[in-house]
Amino acid sequence: MIVTIIGLGLIGGSLAISLKENGFAETIIGVDQEPENVNKAFRRRLIDEEATLEEGIERADLVIIAIPVDSLVKLLPNIMDQVIDQVIIDVGSTKTQIMESIATHPRRGRFVGTHPMAGTEHAGPEAAIPNLFDRKACVLCETEKSDPDALALVEKMYETMEMKLVKMEPLAHDVHTAYVSHISHLSAFALALTVLEKEKNEARIFDLASGGFSSTVRLAKSTPDMWVPIFAQNKDNLLDVLDEHINTLAKFRTCLIKKDFTQIYQLIQKANSIKKILQ
Amino acid sequence: MIVTIIGLGLIGGSLAISLKENGFAETIIGVDQEPENVNKAFRRRLIDEEATLEEGIERADLVIIAIPVDSLVKLLPNIMDQVIDQVIIDVGSTKTQIMESIATHPRRGRFVGTHPMAGTEHAGPEAAIPNLFDRKACVLCETEKSDPDALALVEKMYETMEMKLVKMEPLAHDVHTAYVSHISHLSAFALALTVLEKEKNEARIFDLASGGFSSTVRLAKSTPDMWVPIFAQNKDNLLDVLDEHINTLAKFRTCLIKKDFTQIYQLIQKANSIKKILQ
Repeated sequence: MIVTIIGLGLIGGSLAISLKENGFAETIIGVDQEPENVNKAFRRRLIDEEATLEEGIERADLVIIAIPVDSLVKLLPNIMDQVIDQVIIDVGSTKTQIMESIATHPRRGRFVGTHPMAGTEHAGPEAAIPNLFDRKACVLCETEKSDPDALALVEKMYETMEMKLVKMEPLAHDVHTAYVSHISHLSAFALALTVLEKEKNEARIFDLASGGFSSTVRLAKSTPDMWVPIFAQNKDNLLDVLDEHINTLAKFRTCLIKKDFTQIYQLIQKANSIKKILQ
Repeated sequence: MIVTIIGLGLIGGSLAISLKENGFAETIIGVDQEPENVNKAFRRRLIDEEATLEEGIERADLVIIAIPVDSLVKLLPNIMDQVIDQVIIDVGSTKTQIMESIATHPRRGRFVGTHPMAGTEHAGPEAAIPNLFDRKACVLCETEKSDPDALALVEKMYETMEMKLVKMEPLAHDVHTAYVSHISHLSAFALALTVLEKEKNEARIFDLASGGFSSTVRLAKSTPDMWVPIFAQNKDNLLDVLDEHINTLAKFRTCLIKKDFTQIYQLIQKANSIKKILQ
């Protein structure tokens, strides 16, 4: 199996490691518009060969597109134009606009829309790590519109990493990810800004930043190149969640002002039930 | 050296492990108003002996008080009344009200106010872990009001765990911790509530909750018994930070509504500079 990966960042690079390691791919062809990323990918032995976009698509059995979601929406129809019988997947963090971009494409059946839900706050080929996807959830969208053999191949690929496959409509996916992923990032960015604004003395933050702070703002290290396009494509859902989040914070604020610590106690108890869900 | 620990929770229990392991304490005496906590502490071999409060203070060379900060403010003056030449420390997450509670006590010199900045989202003797404090920051307050021998003993104790000692005024401590610790917890509680409110289908959150979400809301598992008293004592500083945090979130909200993704890009870039501070 020849797998071409377009976009050799954290996700593309980590997929390259896993799919080569577990034997799903015999050959990994890397495509990236940044020559430096291709060089890094070679130095890290993420890819076997490099190719142009056209050549990479032509030679592949399976093409994985792992680029920011704004470029993805623009590039995907062009890629589909070049498809003969290859299978094409995306791994984008939004789904509605991506699925719409090729909804009526004559080769639609060769495409499978996916979102393997794993990542770190780091970016680039140097951030690629083994086992990133192991046993995580992976959303598959509108699978009924994919050719059965294309879908079967993609399911087989994700199963080599023991991913838990979840089928979901694109709109539902975008609502859920606004809640369980996008708002977490927005909140971390805002928290980092709040603290940086106040604590001009960086040494002091460093001194005092205990584990709690680090884990809460860890995501604030994430790159805007990835996240601005996600926020842009999922703007409406994100705004809904953000409004609710601001309202919840305002509820705590009112309780603090009124010294209603009984209600704060109850709110925290309710928040504690997240224990049942998270390990 | 006989060390009495009052309050056998995560912090008291973890100190018991470290101080016994590194040889600072020959004997650890445990005091806790909950017999079940004492039993658990024995079963986990955290303590050598149990004692009543009075007996524990009388027999100790060093007394560590590791109880929620509301009980601490009430109990501390009574404990100081029983002191002959023992050294007494607290490990509370707030400092202003605690230091005030014994400011004019005739035995004030035997007391050292401290805040070893380490913790997890778990509670109770069963949550105690080795090496919790290793190489973390520890704040010491108003050290000039402690007897030199008392201060020297406490510094020696924290140095056995390689803690980085930082001297700070109580008010400054409470402002800084509002920013680097208390707001992170409040934000995590609010985020958990927001998601729980929306995602009634817990299985779905579980399916989709990737690493990002887990790390951001991890702190939402923290117990209200510890955190409500902290929020109560540090209400004014916390309200300042909370207002700024809500304003920052509102800035993102306005940008999203106006589709001003250029400014969102800049905000995220600025937030990214937290990289320089956090590992």
